[in-house]
Amino acid sequence: MSRQMIVATTLEELGTARELLDDSLGFVPTMGYLHEGHLSLARRAREECRTVAVSIFVNPTQFGPSEDLANYPRDLERDLRLLEQEEVDLVWTPTAEMLYPPGYQTWVEVGEVGLPLEGAQRPGHFRGVTTVVTKLFNAVRPSKAYFGQKDAQQAAVIRQMTRDLNFPVEIVVCPIVREPDGLAMSSRNVYLSAEQRRAATVLHRALETAQAEYEHGERLAEALRGTMKDVLRTEPLAQVQYVSCADYETLRELEQVSGKALLSTAVFFGKTRLIDNVVLE
Amino acid sequence: MSRQMIVATTLEELGTARELLDDSLGFVPTMGYLHEGHLSLARRAREECRTVAVSIFVNPTQFGPSEDLANYPRDLERDLRLLEQEEVDLVWTPTAEMLYPPGYQTWVEVGEVGLPLEGAQRPGHFRGVTTVVTKLFNAVRPSKAYFGQKDAQQAAVIRQMTRDLNFPVEIVVCPIVREPDGLAMSSRNVYLSAEQRRAATVLHRALETAQAEYEHGERLAEALRGTMKDVLRTEPLAQVQYVSCADYETLRELEQVSGKALLSTAVFFGKTRLIDNVVLE
Repeated sequence: MSRQMIVATTLEELGTARELLDDSLGFVPTMGYLHEGHLSLARRAREECRTVAVSIFVNPTQFGPSEDLANYPRDLERDLRLLEQEEVDLVWTPTAEMLYPPGYQTWVEVGEVGLPLEGAQRPGHFRGVTTVVTKLFNAVRPSKAYFGQKDAQQAAVIRQMTRDLNFPVEIVVCPIVREPDGLAMSSRNVYLSAEQRRAATVLHRALETAQAEYEHGERLAEALRGTMKDVLRTEPLAQVQYVSCADYETLRELEQVSGKALLSTAVFFGKTRLIDNVVLE
Repeated sequence: MSRQMIVATTLEELGTARELLDDSLGFVPTMGYLHEGHLSLARRAREECRTVAVSIFVNPTQFGPSEDLANYPRDLERDLRLLEQEEVDLVWTPTAEMLYPPGYQTWVEVGEVGLPLEGAQRPGHFRGVTTVVTKLFNAVRPSKAYFGQKDAQQAAVIRQMTRDLNFPVEIVVCPIVREPDGLAMSSRNVYLSAEQRRAATVLHRALETAQAEYEHGERLAEALRGTMKDVLRTEPLAQVQYVSCADYETLRELEQVSGKALLSTAVFFGKTRLIDNVVLE
């Protein structure tokens, strides 16, 4: 079956296009500069839903004042080509002026689950995320929405928001897609120099080492965090921001691992900040 | 046509009932103890939409700690009888435990338009309102929602939120319904003693007097506020909390009335707090 992929820009264009789609609509919100991680979400949506929509929007309200909003990588033509290959039905590419017009003043905020880890390092980040996801959900009206496990806390925050605000949307969280050497795919990986790129594999090695200890019976969270730190310290280019061993749902730091847990870390390589995680279950 | 009115309590019951209704669904959110004001909203919805839903929920998160949540008047049987007479299709009566389960932590907040007047006197009130309306909109999925002009700032806050968050809902604001002597209908009027009830007509007289001055050419906002205060002062039982002459959309206090404006006031009679307003256009 060969269908034309619709590309909508304005809210009106989106509204018209949405009418042509099915009640069974899988939605993949992205900031563009797509990689295999994003495409895996579109494929999963394609498998599970009768129609698929993707948004491409570099959301200014989730960037801090000292973050990389202006330099965030963009390549819309390539993105559209890739999404056409995945048989996406609708791509929405709004501008910041459309989503945050003059006088804009409404915010959606999740509490406790958004406070530690990324929330502590990036004040206001999750408020920007939950606000824009609310807007995207209301405009696109999907039946399912797909997020990557790479942004583990974002997924937890969005699950909480969706449940709390009674959104009629099922949240599907998909596994991290990695490069052959283990580096988690990220649009920000293009910022890395060749040397930093080689060094960046240390995130996954640190997480894998701690995960192996867990699988051999270690349940002390502080020991698992210590192992991650030890491995990260072997890489001189890595400046560790945090390592965490937290409850999978609440993201509270653990003393003992008993249920499902999240090992996660944020590390700078020069000015580039990378995050990665593994789930213990 | 005789249809059975469905009464849903749980979210699951609501979801099942919602499936039976049309895409054209008019929604009237209420806190129950219905009066002619509420019923005028249901009638308007009945005229404009193929199906009509009403929620009855005394929302705890919009009451301050010193406010009248525990004593707020309730009479569900009478409410259901009245709504059946208005040929409402669906009534949803959730409990606080269903809408705010343990671990609940997500809030929707509107900025500037929610800060003065009621927002200044009732901290957190509009955060409770916008949060519960978001939840009700997501659960009920109406095409139109009906609010009373009596709560003028609430209507402005909800219009702002709906626009900002891209809710696919048209907000319809309906005129204040008054008793024969001019008192705006309110569930809280039952708190008034006979003496207070007679005194309470002063709100409408104050607003009407200022409105008449406006219609005779007065454009100085301070003069209109002064007139309202003068009339309110003639009633010894009235303790004035605020009088306002503000822009209709932004609710900023005016110096000169040039466009559409809102005259509003909040007055205590003993422990009972009444509000009222008129629109200048």
